[in-house]
Amino acid sequence: MSASREKMLREGFGKHGLMRTIGAEIISAHKGRVDVRFGFNSALTQQNGFIHAGVVTSVMDTACGYAAFSVGSNSSDVLSVEFKVNFLAPAVGESFVVHAEVKRAGKVLSVCTADAFAVHDGKEKLIATMLATMMNMPAQPA
Amino acid sequence: MSASREKMLREGFGKHGLMRTIGAEIISAHKGRVDVRFGFNSALTQQNGFIHAGVVTSVMDTACGYAAFSVGSNSSDVLSVEFKVNFLAPAVGESFVVHAEVKRAGKVLSVCTADAFAVHDGKEKLIATMLATMMNMPAQPA
Amino acid sequence: MSASREKMLREGFGKHGLMRTIGAEIISAHKGRVDVRFGFNSALTQQNGFIHAGVVTSVMDTACGYAAFSVGSNSSDVLSVEFKVNFLAPAVGESFVVHAEVKRAGKVLSVCTADAFAVHDGKEKLIATMLATMMNMPAQPA
Amino acid sequence: MSASREKMLREGFGKHGLMRTIGAEIISAHKGRVDVRFGFNSALTQQNGFIHAGVVTSVMDTACGYAAFSVGSNSSDVLSVEFKVNFLAPAVGESFVVHAEVKRAGKVLSVCTADAFAVHDGKEKLIATMLATMMNMPAQPA
Repeated sequence: MSASREKMLREGFGKHGLMRTIGAEIISAHKGRVDVRFGFNSALTQQNGFIHAGVVTSVMDTACGYAAFSVGSNSSDVLSVEFKVNFLAPAVGESFVVHAEVKRAGKVLSVCTADAFAVHDGKEKLIATMLATMMNMPAQPA
Repeated sequence: MSASREKMLREGFGKHGLMRTIGAEIISAHKGRVDVRFGFNSALTQQNGFIHAGVVTSVMDTACGYAAFSVGSNSSDVLSVEFKVNFLAPAVGESFVVHAEVKRAGKVLSVCTADAFAVHDGKEKLIATMLATMMNMPAQPA
Repeated sequence: MSASREKMLREGFGKHGLMRTIGAEIISAHKGRVDVRFGFNSALTQQNGFIHAGVVTSVMDTACGYAAFSVGSNSSDVLSVEFKVNFLAPAVGESFVVHAEVKRAGKVLSVCTADAFAVHDGKEKLIATMLATMMNMPAQPA
Repeated sequence: MSASREKMLREGFGKHGLMRTIGAEIISAHKGRVDVRFGFNSALTQQNGFIHAGVVTSVMDTACGYAAFSVGSNSSDVLSVEFKVNFLAPAVGESFVVHAEVKRAGKVLSVCTADAFAVHDGKEKLIATMLATMMNMPAQPA
């Protein structure tokens, strides 16, 4: 990814009010691959006190979106068409890591996958997996 | 739905830190059908200032979960196995409404659907649709 | 749907080798809605002798595709981007009916839903439900 | 996988009328991984003469099912709960290969992934990817 594209990617991520609310931050961003982490926060829980499936999904969706963005041209933005998530284990942990990758980059549509891990007592456990379709769009003028 | 089950449902919903953070509230809860609403909040946005797809998804997931819960026995809780969401229009609006229904209630698994609408200038627009699989589990002792 | 579009739709359906192998036929085709049926055939079964989930899926996909086609212009064809199917009951029956509808028609993408029913001893039972994304493409010259 | 479980797996696969109709055969079956191939056949096409998305899906579903079966006990059978497939390129080729893997094996549910490749002029191309949920069931007595 070019330096200018990575700058756009990180600025775009920084504009998400939701990512701030979740406390999510980019660990690394490369062409076709974006990694994001966030910590436990009781404002983000479901009924049993674990992180809500929708929070994990939100971060996976954003990471997939920027993975698709990382392979696009500087004049393009990315939109979520749809995604599917399977939840494999409860989101129990002190922090959470999401790895998103582009599986196939197309002119109009990109297909991405993401895995989410909970870090609990120093051990990583796979908690969810996403298969997502992203659409390239002309970037909106600032 | 029995009065005791509805009480459990509303208490369960009230325990979600995330639903409080989103400001989501139950409009109505009937056997096999749960409706939820929430208002616009800049803490919940994506890069263009619209509500993040993950927020809409979180509310749809929760509404589907409680729709499945509404048809379960008093000793059962519900867990999200997986879901798929299609995003049909940007989440532009002052408030948002989610209608979730049980499509097929099984002993172990229930399949639910949800539609999400944005309310903008007094008009409702369909913005997303979910197809979800929920699993019945023995309720955890309090 | 115009008469010419319906003619194109029925001719397109007739070109599917797989629909002939399955013995699927269009019951009715209207703008945004296509219904298809097929009968039991032991060449289409899974290990227990019931109709294979993939056969039901194939007919649902085709019906969704032609539902999307029915709302397109005469110069456009339709391609399956992706779909998700939930299987709700074993495909036990003498015949099977699929109802497909356009949920939202877009310029590039259309989102469709389909329900599949088994007809067994004169009773219809819901056996599967699909949520699908279809893409409009320029029609290929004959 | 034990020799007896592999024998059950191959016998089960052999009972699928649809797999015979498609001409699909197991390339290899290991614990948590099943590979299947099939050749082009004009009885399995869509309107443009390519292999129908539903055929690719049928083989991916079956391969995922037997991948889940391969990690189950001898007294269990497997049922498809749901799956999602993204189609990445037209199914153009002389033959097709599906690789299915168990992503997470659970007591009740297993989550599997599969990739499908077309082999055309000696080159493999990724044409589809599946994310599927399978359910363990008590095996039916013969």
